This record gives sequence, structure tokens and C-alpha cells, in this order.
Amino acid sequence: MSQFWSSTVSQLTPYVPGEQPKLPGLVKLNTNENPYGPSPQVIAALREAAADSLRLYPDPTASELKQTLADYHGVSSAEVFVGNGSDEVLALAFMALLKHDAPLLFPDISYSFYPVYCKLYGIDYRTVPLDDTMRIRPEDYTGPCGAIIFPNPNAPTGVNLPLDGVEALLQAHPDAVVVVDEAYVDFGGESAIRLVRQYRNLLVVQTLSKSRSLAGLRVGFAIGHADLIEALERVKNSFNSYPLDRLALAGAVASFRDEAYFQQTRTAVIDSRTQLTRQLAALGFEVLPSVANFVFARHPQHDAAQLAAGLRARSVIVRHFNSPRISQYLRISIGNPTECAALLEALRSLV
Amino acid sequence: MSQFWSSTVSQLTPYVPGEQPKLPGLVKLNTNENPYGPSPQVIAALREAAADSLRLYPDPTASELKQTLADYHGVSSAEVFVGNGSDEVLALAFMALLKHDAPLLFPDISYSFYPVYCKLYGIDYRTVPLDDTMRIRPEDYTGPCGAIIFPNPNAPTGVNLPLDGVEALLQAHPDAVVVVDEAYVDFGGESAIRLVRQYRNLLVVQTLSKSRSLAGLRVGFAIGHADLIEALERVKNSFNSYPLDRLALAGAVASFRDEAYFQQTRTAVIDSRTQLTRQLAALGFEVLPSVANFVFARHPQHDAAQLAAGLRARSVIVRHFNSPRISQYLRISIGNPTECAALLEALRSLV
Repeated sequence: MSQFWSSTVSQLTPYVPGEQPKLPGLVKLNTNENPYGPSPQVIAALREAAADSLRLYPDPTASELKQTLADYHGVSSAEVFVGNGSDEVLALAFMALLKHDAPLLFPDISYSFYPVYCKLYGIDYRTVPLDDTMRIRPEDYTGPCGAIIFPNPNAPTGVNLPLDGVEALLQAHPDAVVVVDEAYVDFGGESAIRLVRQYRNLLVVQTLSKSRSLAGLRVGFAIGHADLIEALERVKNSFNSYPLDRLALAGAVASFRDEAYFQQTRTAVIDSRTQLTRQLAALGFEVLPSVANFVFARHPQHDAAQLAAGLRARSVIVRHFNSPRISQYLRISIGNPTECAALLEALRSLV
Repeated sequence: MSQFWSSTVSQLTPYVPGEQPKLPGLVKLNTNENPYGPSPQVIAALREAAADSLRLYPDPTASELKQTLADYHGVSSAEVFVGNGSDEVLALAFMALLKHDAPLLFPDISYSFYPVYCKLYGIDYRTVPLDDTMRIRPEDYTGPCGAIIFPNPNAPTGVNLPLDGVEALLQAHPDAVVVVDEAYVDFGGESAIRLVRQYRNLLVVQTLSKSRSLAGLRVGFAIGHADLIEALERVKNSFNSYPLDRLALAGAVASFRDEAYFQQTRTAVIDSRTQLTRQLAALGFEVLPSVANFVFARHPQHDAAQLAAGLRARSVIVRHFNSPRISQYLRISIGNPTECAALLEALRSLV
């Protein structure tokens, strides 16, 4: 701590992302990356964009990408916001739309960045417990409520809230913004984007990091009523005019133009999840029903921290959260078949 | 304005960047981009990084880039911060280091994003007039002062404050952070980086957008005492873990490894500036002494807004700020020799 720091700095508890070790031969199942690379059309677009034109600023309005997303999702470009990964989109949404006199509500078990954003912006919040089966119960969101945010499917549980549950929240809180953070929705969930025209208080956030295999490119977006998008634009243009570089813009546009590759890779991940869930159950794990590209599992006879350490000793890394209610769970990203097999082999020697 | 907006949103006055028109044949001298493309080694590094590995997150600590910058500038990597363009670095610095009880001071004529950041974060500020020759006078920075920021060379004037002036400010305000925003320093200024070890209150911000020809890649950095860097890291990690994508990291590292290309292109820009300054003077313009990749010039007999409109009609765009004290100036980016010739030809038909 230093005399030069602004008063908020010393009170911050920064988010800690999953580690990115550079060890060769590691089976890396800890940060929910896609086991398959991006579309070859994306790679080609990126190589073409790596040119002299990088001397010029990118389009600060990202108009081509916004139009591409609007066309893909059946909305207008005024209903689309883009940012430097969905983390930046979320950060700007917290500042622009989630700070009110009444507290922000989110599940007690959800994306651990949410309370970090709240501290950064001085947002009052209250967590709402998941039920005993780790589900969000819309009827539990009662009392003073300035806004609501939750991942769907939830992270790190992978559990889905069906769209009628999302609608129940939207209808119960017509005066509060409801942000649905759909980072993992393409692996089996149902997007709330189709509700955007019905509910002016709905903002849906998605990312290209998971189902589009582009965690390394940092592109996320939000879709909602033009009034909500305008709030995001105003804050964005008071923070950074050009958050998306020319390569990120070109790669993101190309990704949405290769639907066949998207369907093929997401289906492969879903198939692997189905198989891995069955195999983990056969080893005695209790696996929560997941519609994400990871599973959340515990073993009644084995301590999760010890299992994670044992896996690490066998060059397999998964994520373990030493937090209330979930300290006996492991979050395991869905790898390719070889990685899943390596995980299972390591687990067989541990349980 | 909407009921869903946080209270700050409606009060914002977002920054308006220079336009990025897509017209063919346009001579674009309005946003201080480098007329030369990035180093061929940068292009090669970007094409190599456009690969399957984009499915993985980038290094959230940007350790290779930080070490590269530390080695280049003779500091340690704990004295280096990197961000998504120097605009993001500045935005985070405003939040982490420039918000105090006493007002932030900056010149009345400087980067027009500064007051925008102040509004975003609720920072009290006071502007200090440049003198009649458009120079920063360190002795004018008196009275209550929470922190100081200024571009050096200043923008949009291009005028340099020599290092002894920077030191005068640092010594007069040992309890205030002094941020020197050196976006244009490589075109003839002298960097304050060599003062960082002497002054714990100094933060120097630079960008790869101008002298490194990478406006389209969005990379900026700051160098200062490890305490100041830690404040930036804490805020950054409460906002966005991965602001720099894999391509931006790879391209930025490659740029600092091609010193010959950097020297060659920055020298070419400096030579063009010298020549253009002489030619503008011959047309009757008063040109401020610039050490940037632009000149700031006025014509005693011609209105600047009309000149800008006349140039635009001739497919040449420059930047005109309709602001107090500078509304009779044009800010003209230094183009390549062909672009400078086109500018001069258009001006000859107007003055």
C-alpha cells in the first residue's frame, strides 16, 4: 500500500484466474478452454489481417462485427455491444447498469469475478443461495433488488436454469436489469437472446472464448434493448475507444461465418461430456447435470483437494475452489478424447 | 436515458475519437497514425501466432512482454504495466492513482480524453493554462494538487517540455503522482523513463500505436516504481484478467526486437516533419515547434474550420478541434512523402 494509491485500491481483492502453466505434456482441464482449435476460416482471416493496415486504428464502433452478430442472432446492430472478452463486457455492465441504491443479487455459488467487480465500483450486493441440488430458484430472489446477474448455465456448477425460470425472474423484477451471463450456453443450454425483444430489462452476455475456441483472442458481446446497449457504449467510450484490435475484429467476424465448424466442434464437446459423465459416475463420482463444457463432480470417499493434488502429480490439472459448499467438488473441463482418457486413467489410480 | 442506467451514466460526455472513414483514395492525416506499416518481423510473428493455440487463454500476467519492455528500457519487469492500448493504461491509472481529495491538474490544452476519465470516476480536476507560446510552465502548477498528468510532447500542440521541466514538477510535488503521457515521445522528445528510479511518484505511459506503427493492435504500457505498478495491477485484475490477446502479445514482443526498423521509420517521419514544417511556413502558416508525428498550425489569413472543410473536399482529412484557444489551428499528421505532397497541393489551392 502506498500514499499514491487512490482510496479504493487498497480495499480491492483482485480476481485470480485459473493458472496458465507452460509445462509440456500437461493435460490442461482447468480453465474451460475448447479442446479444438478455432475454425480454419478464422485462422485464414487473422493471417490476412496481419498486414500493413495494422498501422491504422481499428473501427471504434466495430460496425462490421456488430452487424454480423445482429444478423446471426436476429436482432439489430443497435441491440449489440462488443468488448475485449466477456469479462470486459461484464465489467462495463456492472458500472453502467448494475449499480443502484438497492443491492445487486446473484447466486452464492457463481462466477467469482462478480464480487470483485462489486468491490471495484462500490456496488452493494447480496448473494442468494442455490438450493440443495445446486439450482437457481427464481422464487428465492425476493426483497430489495437493484439488479440481478447470474451465469446460465451456472459456473462452476454447469447446471442450467430453463428459460421459463429466466422469464420468471424478468417478470418478477420489471424495474431491475437482469443480466444473463451465457458464457457456456452453446454446449446445451437455451439462450435468452430470443427474449430480448419482450423484456426491456434483459441483457444477455456471451463470449467467443468457449464454444468458438477463441479464448486467446478476447472477444465478448452483449445483446439487449438499445437503451441498455447505449449505457454500455457511453461507459465504454469514456474508458477506451478501441478495445477490440483489428485482428480480434476480423477473427470474430470470420467465426460467425463458419457455422458448420461451430456445430461440429460443439457437438464433439457435448458427446465427450456425455461419455465422461458416465465414466466418472462409474468411478463413484457424483456429477452435477451439466450443459457446459465442464463437469462439476465430487467423490463421496475422497477429498477434492487431495484428488486435485493427485491429478496434478500425474500431469493433469483441474480447478478446485476452496470455498464454502463447493470445496469437495472438482471442476473438470471437457478435453478431447485423448485428454479425457488421460484424466480417467489418472483418476483410476486415485479412487 | 433509462431507468436502468446507473446514476453516473447519464452525466457522461464520452470521448469522440478521430473518424475512421473507409473511402478509397483518401489522404488520412487526422489520427496521427504512422504512414509506414509495422515491422515485417511483427507481421511474421502475428501470422505464426494465428494458430490452434488461440483456443487457450493468453498469459494473464503478460510476462514475456513485460520482460521484453523491461530489458528494452533498462528497468525490472515489476516496474512495467501493459494494457489494451495506452488509453486503457490511462483509464486504469486515473482510477488507481489520480483520484484523491485534492484536484488532479492538467494543461488546459491537452489530450481531450482526460476530462472524460475524470467524469467517469468522479475525479475533481483543475486545468492549468499553457503560456502564450503554448508551453507547459512547471511553475504554474501551484495550489492544491492531488496528482498531475500531461502529454509530453503535448497533444494536440506537439510542443515538448524538456526533461528538466519534468523534474521540476516531480520535485515540487513529491507527494503527488505525476503521469507523463509519452504517446509521441519517440519522434524527437526525451523520455522520462530514465527518471523512474529517482522519483517514486513518476509514472511514464507509452504506446505502440504511433512510433511502432501498431494502432490497429492496441498495446500500451506504463513504467514506474513497483508500488505504482502494483496499484495498476490490482485495478486491472479487478476489471479484466486478459486485456491483451495472444496476437497483441506476440506482435508487441516482436516489435521491440526489430530496433533497426523502428529507427528507420521514426527517422523518416522526423525528416518528413522537418520538410513539411518548412513548406507550411512558406505557405504562410504559423507552425508550432513539434517533436511529435504531427504538426499544429494556423494561418493568419484563413479560418481553420474552412481550411479543414476545403481539404476534405479535396479528399484530405486533418483534425480540427472547435475548442477555446485552438479553434484556429489544424492538427496535421505526418504522412509519407506522397501524402505530404497531396496535402500541400490541396493547401496551395486554398491559401
